[in-house]
Amino acid sequence: MKDRYELYYWPGIQGRGEFIRLILEQAGAEYADVARLPKSENGGLAALRRILEPTPDRPHPFAPPVLVHGDLVLPQTTLICRYLAERHELAPERIPDRLLAEHLQLTIADFALETHDTHHPLGVTLYYEDQKPEAARRAAAFRDSRLPKFLGYFERVLEENGRSSGRHLIGEALTYVDLSMFQILEGLAHAYPEAFGSMATRIPRLSALRARVRELPRIASYLASERRLPFNEHGLFRHYPELDAPVGP
Amino acid sequence: MKDRYELYYWPGIQGRGEFIRLILEQAGAEYADVARLPKSENGGLAALRRILEPTPDRPHPFAPPVLVHGDLVLPQTTLICRYLAERHELAPERIPDRLLAEHLQLTIADFALETHDTHHPLGVTLYYEDQKPEAARRAAAFRDSRLPKFLGYFERVLEENGRSSGRHLIGEALTYVDLSMFQILEGLAHAYPEAFGSMATRIPRLSALRARVRELPRIASYLASERRLPFNEHGLFRHYPELDAPVGP
Repeated sequence: MKDRYELYYWPGIQGRGEFIRLILEQAGAEYADVARLPKSENGGLAALRRILEPTPDRPHPFAPPVLVHGDLVLPQTTLICRYLAERHELAPERIPDRLLAEHLQLTIADFALETHDTHHPLGVTLYYEDQKPEAARRAAAFRDSRLPKFLGYFERVLEENGRSSGRHLIGEALTYVDLSMFQILEGLAHAYPEAFGSMATRIPRLSALRARVRELPRIASYLASERRLPFNEHGLFRHYPELDAPVGP
Repeated sequence: MKDRYELYYWPGIQGRGEFIRLILEQAGAEYADVARLPKSENGGLAALRRILEPTPDRPHPFAPPVLVHGDLVLPQTTLICRYLAERHELAPERIPDRLLAEHLQLTIADFALETHDTHHPLGVTLYYEDQKPEAARRAAAFRDSRLPKFLGYFERVLEENGRSSGRHLIGEALTYVDLSMFQILEGLAHAYPEAFGSMATRIPRLSALRARVRELPRIASYLASERRLPFNEHGLFRHYPELDAPVGP
């Protein structure tokens, strides 16, 4: 099957789609970010809506993102990430390592969702503006407990990984898990500069990983391009100063 | 590798562990539910804590459940479910079907988490009693919007699947996805009897699936055994009458 992919995701945000875009970019894969194409090229929200429609021949997607590759129409971020990574040498070689990479990727997804939920504790059916006091309480619990717990966990995972002297989360080489961790760290630096900044001395290995991924030639080129959307207050990682504060000692 | 498994999960609840137990039971697999064993058999919470500890040779688990199979120490519910199902003929045969089964399983996990979050909208660091007004708002949004959306989605997936005349969510035969859907429906019937009951006429295929899974000989035997813990107000699916009400038309 020819390696030409179509990604369907909300056009105005990094969101969950960004975990996928980073893999496609590092793989040097040919892909269309369909909903960001103009209508004249069959893009836009209409294209996104079409791919979500029920069909008689396969279970349809519940929500974006969706990856199309040949006949395969594949939803769910962590699944798409693994699928692409295993096709493009961005996953470990050995099966047990692949399974443990997936475990880390699913835990990164949990971390991303908990970060998201700080601005949407009452769910996605209400705007942030309709749940600000609740968001303030959830963000405080996130800063004081969940953020240090997740960051401490991944710092420790790097420390444990003697196979790459703590340079990669799993195995000897760069994998999709490192790319997704980079995205989480970028997102936290945007959304929670005070809280995340106050954690800096506690996560030296994660900070070094973030810097190294940013300097990978293909990633650096992508980040400097117009393909990389800026963070904004419609995505997964949103900066609301009223939710931010340094993490306690 | 001999098919002898160890499951490590909180001993007093069905929780996420139950999705795994149902697969082990339907597979007829030999397994120990380690944290439920007495201390004299190396069980209890001490055993659960031990499996979560950092080790130098692999990334350690972030949280339970954890499956141990030979040298493999595998966390994350959806990953464990897929791993077991593919070993025990409870997953589809063809690779594209396997991927789409995973997609459904991840969507079931999202549905389970959103159900959980109705009683913990401010996160797991606070008790339900410390977030009751917030839970009431989130539960209302869940009943009015997310519950019908998720149930309607899976009903439609059954309807689409002509390969089993709508009897299974994916492919021609029973898979782990059907077992996990059964668990969600059982959980909703416990936690939200009013809301879930009011949806009954809209989900005939899901209701039939639930009844069929309950009558599978191995599942029926498991449900009647002491191995099946009762639902309670410490798990994923909790019945708080103040959060329940019929879904609107």
